[in-house]
Amino acid sequence: MKPHGPIPPHFSALHGELAIGGRIASALVKEAGDTPLFVYSRDLIAARIADLRTAMPERLRLHYAMKANPYGPLLEFIADHVDGLDIASGGELEQARAAGFLPREISFAGPGKRDRELSAAIRAGVTLNVESENEAERALAFGKALDIAPRLAIRVNPNFDLRGSGMKMGGGAKPFGVDEGRVPELARRIVDAGANWRGFHIYAGSQALDAEAIIQSQASTLELAARLAREAGVTVPHFNMGGGFGIPYFDRDAPLDIAAVGAALERQFDTLPPELTETEFVIELGRYLVGEAGVYLTRIVDRKDSHGVTYLITDGGLHHQLAASGNFGTVVRRNYPLAIASRFDADAEELVNVVGCLCTPLDRLADQAHLPRAEVGDIVAVFCAGAYGATASPSAFLGQGAALEMLV
Amino acid sequence: MKPHGPIPPHFSALHGELAIGGRIASALVKEAGDTPLFVYSRDLIAARIADLRTAMPERLRLHYAMKANPYGPLLEFIADHVDGLDIASGGELEQARAAGFLPREISFAGPGKRDRELSAAIRAGVTLNVESENEAERALAFGKALDIAPRLAIRVNPNFDLRGSGMKMGGGAKPFGVDEGRVPELARRIVDAGANWRGFHIYAGSQALDAEAIIQSQASTLELAARLAREAGVTVPHFNMGGGFGIPYFDRDAPLDIAAVGAALERQFDTLPPELTETEFVIELGRYLVGEAGVYLTRIVDRKDSHGVTYLITDGGLHHQLAASGNFGTVVRRNYPLAIASRFDADAEELVNVVGCLCTPLDRLADQAHLPRAEVGDIVAVFCAGAYGATASPSAFLGQGAALEMLV
Repeated sequence: MKPHGPIPPHFSALHGELAIGGRIASALVKEAGDTPLFVYSRDLIAARIADLRTAMPERLRLHYAMKANPYGPLLEFIADHVDGLDIASGGELEQARAAGFLPREISFAGPGKRDRELSAAIRAGVTLNVESENEAERALAFGKALDIAPRLAIRVNPNFDLRGSGMKMGGGAKPFGVDEGRVPELARRIVDAGANWRGFHIYAGSQALDAEAIIQSQASTLELAARLAREAGVTVPHFNMGGGFGIPYFDRDAPLDIAAVGAALERQFDTLPPELTETEFVIELGRYLVGEAGVYLTRIVDRKDSHGVTYLITDGGLHHQLAASGNFGTVVRRNYPLAIASRFDADAEELVNVVGCLCTPLDRLADQAHLPRAEVGDIVAVFCAGAYGATASPSAFLGQGAALEMLV
Repeated sequence: MKPHGPIPPHFSALHGELAIGGRIASALVKEAGDTPLFVYSRDLIAARIADLRTAMPERLRLHYAMKANPYGPLLEFIADHVDGLDIASGGELEQARAAGFLPREISFAGPGKRDRELSAAIRAGVTLNVESENEAERALAFGKALDIAPRLAIRVNPNFDLRGSGMKMGGGAKPFGVDEGRVPELARRIVDAGANWRGFHIYAGSQALDAEAIIQSQASTLELAARLAREAGVTVPHFNMGGGFGIPYFDRDAPLDIAAVGAALERQFDTLPPELTETEFVIELGRYLVGEAGVYLTRIVDRKDSHGVTYLITDGGLHHQLAASGNFGTVVRRNYPLAIASRFDADAEELVNVVGCLCTPLDRLADQAHLPRAEVGDIVAVFCAGAYGATASPSAFLGQGAALEMLV
């Protein structure tokens, strides 16, 4: 038996089935018309954001990193609950505006911004987190040509990383941001060129579950921003401190203690260095806001035995759940939280492998999972599907196409 | 320095640039209108198929496994060069018919076929490689309901695998096919039920470069098919022997010796057991036919230094090149063959990291590659991009969208 990850709280059984937003899985599938189906819960997103606001200092603004989940209705919903948005491409800029975000609430980070993306962002009035001296010069040149003072911040490549994070975004050579040592000169250059100077963006890592690591990283981040401002002789109107708040995916993962993170940040804010007293502070979170609010529902189309192993074969798979299949950013595959949605309150009684419908051994959803007995027609739920699911997977693979999506 | 894989033969410099199909990279990009761009060469596909026909026994029919690359114009082109097509979904069936393949030339394998896919395939007259007893019964029931004798073959899960293959599709418990021991009974059931019995499909593995391993696997495959036919007391009108012919992606990979494979198969065909003398033999190849004929072209949008490391940041990335980024089916990332397309005949003079434009450290195209000096605006070519590129990557990730594609 290989344990699966912890099913996020707030999911319960109703008439024996998994309920999401008070509605049972089979009814959701019926309304959507088919499986596979991503279901995202408004209530769970709103509750997560409310809990976060309670835990964090009031002064801290909250941005949504839309790369986690850009589904239109979800984006429109979240626009009313957060203070701004972080985007990573010109495509995301268009989606963000369609969802009702105002350009002044949007910042754009990404190491390979194209000319047309820089130009569109400057025209719209979006803040660019510039990732290199060259990109800064290109942005200044576009601003001049368009007769607009571009809103520019510098993305800093910090000398530290976020300890224990799933992906390290600092602490050595990186394609992201400008190395600490070169930031003061670039900041002065941007201010002297007459741009609308916004401040800094420092993102040290993602998917961390250890509060102490986040606390240390935030302290280092604040210290670094103050030092860079001092050395450059510039103000810091706006400071995007990054994110990195993780969610539990795997067995023995424990939720992040946001109360501890918030209390520590409150203490930091109480003793800010002079360079940061007027600063608007922002954290950007994607996965943490929406990851646990999403469930992927896929129907069992075959149940078969091979050499004594039972396989449940579903109509979904890695084309919608690349990370859950173990093929995205993980070396050793472990089981995401999952369940038989249509028998959510039944006792586990057998060990099965749950796989997708693709003709490749990579297409695995659970190995040796201990689950209630399920038959063809039953619905499997993969949890933690609200972030980096639909758009972070190769949906066109083997002619399958995108999954359905639904906000309830 | 980390070596990159071998650039496939037949690519050469013209006016200093990489030429594909006799045309230089910059001209191809200009015609397509943008980067990133996949370019597939008709000539290289045709030459590969011609070489294969020369090496293989005349009796062997050649099918294209369209999962490797379903780009419409490529599919239409290849339809004139192969004897049939293998599909893996109802979506692929529609694409195949649009490209001009006749249903009787098409076979459909895949462990999770849905009711509507079975029904569409039976209506069309496509051969179903059934993957379980349950699927066989569903197909027979649909045939009865539609008053059509469905064309059915059995996909066998062999007790052996393809030694050295990138992905093993046999040799133990698998979600694919029916375990050897249960095949005779199922074959009799299918014949007795009045289906249009087609024979067997045995696919032991993929991406093998060792001719001896393929020769052994083909010998085992033939022996198994004969034994199953004997035990079941059925004929084998059609036998899909699988594929598994690999291409060199990485340093020290050597091309598969197809002459040796063909000669061995010729000997096998000369001494066929009585059960197989009338059989139509097929191999299905995807990657081997189109992989080396494709090149991914992406433009450098930034060149930057971080802690002494040079990064070339492109407008492409893992959203089109998931496998090349090291995130699909590989544990240790190695460099695919790549080059500076716009300086194809220049000498290598620096070590650089080539990355994509996505805001994630997973987005790598080459680590510590030894390349000619390249500047912003130069075009990078990633080779072996003809198979499992565009559709096997998460193109919607970070709002990027699909790459352009072009057949020349």
